[in-house]
Amino acid sequence: MEQLYIIKIGGNIIDDSIKLAAFIKQFSELFGENSQHPFMGRALLVHGGGKLATKLSKELNIEQQLIDGRRITDSETLKIVTMVYAGYINKNIVALLQANNCNAIGISGADGNAIKAHKRPLKNGIDYGFVGDVDEVNISFIQNLLQQKTSIVLAPITINDKGQLLNTNADTIAQEVAKAMSTLYNVTLIYSFEKPGVLLDVTNESSVIKSIHPELYAQLKEEKKIFEGMIPKLDNAFEALQNGVNKVIIGKAEELKNLIEEKSGTSIIQ
Amino acid sequence: MEQLYIIKIGGNIIDDSIKLAAFIKQFSELFGENSQHPFMGRALLVHGGGKLATKLSKELNIEQQLIDGRRITDSETLKIVTMVYAGYINKNIVALLQANNCNAIGISGADGNAIKAHKRPLKNGIDYGFVGDVDEVNISFIQNLLQQKTSIVLAPITINDKGQLLNTNADTIAQEVAKAMSTLYNVTLIYSFEKPGVLLDVTNESSVIKSIHPELYAQLKEEKKIFEGMIPKLDNAFEALQNGVNKVIIGKAEELKNLIEEKSGTSIIQ
Repeated sequence: MEQLYIIKIGGNIIDDSIKLAAFIKQFSELFGENSQHPFMGRALLVHGGGKLATKLSKELNIEQQLIDGRRITDSETLKIVTMVYAGYINKNIVALLQANNCNAIGISGADGNAIKAHKRPLKNGIDYGFVGDVDEVNISFIQNLLQQKTSIVLAPITINDKGQLLNTNADTIAQEVAKAMSTLYNVTLIYSFEKPGVLLDVTNESSVIKSIHPELYAQLKEEKKIFEGMIPKLDNAFEALQNGVNKVIIGKAEELKNLIEEKSGTSIIQ
Repeated sequence: MEQLYIIKIGGNIIDDSIKLAAFIKQFSELFGENSQHPFMGRALLVHGGGKLATKLSKELNIEQQLIDGRRITDSETLKIVTMVYAGYINKNIVALLQANNCNAIGISGADGNAIKAHKRPLKNGIDYGFVGDVDEVNISFIQNLLQQKTSIVLAPITINDKGQLLNTNADTIAQEVAKAMSTLYNVTLIYSFEKPGVLLDVTNESSVIKSIHPELYAQLKEEKKIFEGMIPKLDNAFEALQNGVNKVIIGKAEELKNLIEEKSGTSIIQ
């Protein structure tokens, strides 16, 4: 099977133009028209939101509703995230890739019904608003786009059966797309962000754990050595591996090439 | 050759949810999965901006610069139009089409380098800012998307050789795409907006001119019977016809089906 890299970049990278430029440069060297590397396979980039949506909401005096620390997506917030994620960020990443001779097409989950979702049901009486939980990835649509020798840049907006746009977590989208596409491709899923990988000591950037298998993960969790924010990412990673994904790598966005070559970051293995 | 409809909808329609819904319904009945009509061919929808970008700029206290009545696209305005055109409007039209069982993919001219442009050179010492004049339409990219049994929704944002996003007039984009695609398809170009067609008397909606050929156009212009705002549209229409486009029709967005069947609107012929 052909190789497909599904790469998530975190919001902190999108907010940092220098880190973003370094990431885009490496992405383009790997997957662009003038790639110096043997054919790496195809690539799909899932981006998060960054701080721009929050900033814009503030400037427009749209109050962010939080319940139990979780953001509620009301109709005004949905409008903002659609503009910022599927418009500003998506098209700017596409433009940066084109500037680096890496052809790309930017889409949201609504385009071609790429990612169907349903509105999250009430949880403990809390209505999260226009938040979507993924039902189905349109694998043939994504495959057809990838066959056009273009990378895909995917904004974390999904759509339900009635044509309602929904806001969906980008980590979850990356995982769902990786699982679904693994029926057609040999999939590597990469979570790239500001940290060099999964750290044993969250205050020490050189304490990267080289690889984690399920037994080590259970042990580290028991010893409370895993930084809390990392647990959902690792749970996602193991779930992906159990559902057809070949490899999951977590690490620094600016070290994308090293991550792919497993020279840095944390590899999650079964 | 297969039939391709390139349909521009004007900003006034986008701002009017009832008119927009009527347009989308007819578009979907013609080109959607449950089309009751014999296969109409494929469709590409070019949308303008509407008032949302201006409204948003005001709310964000971004001053619109006008020189000689023409809008200047500075970097803040480019950010707004990228968000609004390629994000909010584009994805909402896609979602409305999906809601009507008409599969669609929303792109900008930056995606897949669909529409390359260059920054408009100074005119009489005036710098229009990030405004793009079209150089090239990527016909094979657009053809490949159309072959996926999906309509295309195109936002009027283009890209230059260096990956700079540019703001481009939607009428011009519709015309350039129509001309370029006419090498592969039998192209009908439709300008749909709030008026029922080209009017002999701008105050009388029943004075629609059924068809205009070059001699009549010259005569009407001489007699100053053509409403000024219509002249660039008609000039564009004749230029399209001289460059391979088969037919140009101007009329009401809510009457799309009648326009296509030439039961209403104005047909521009050579």
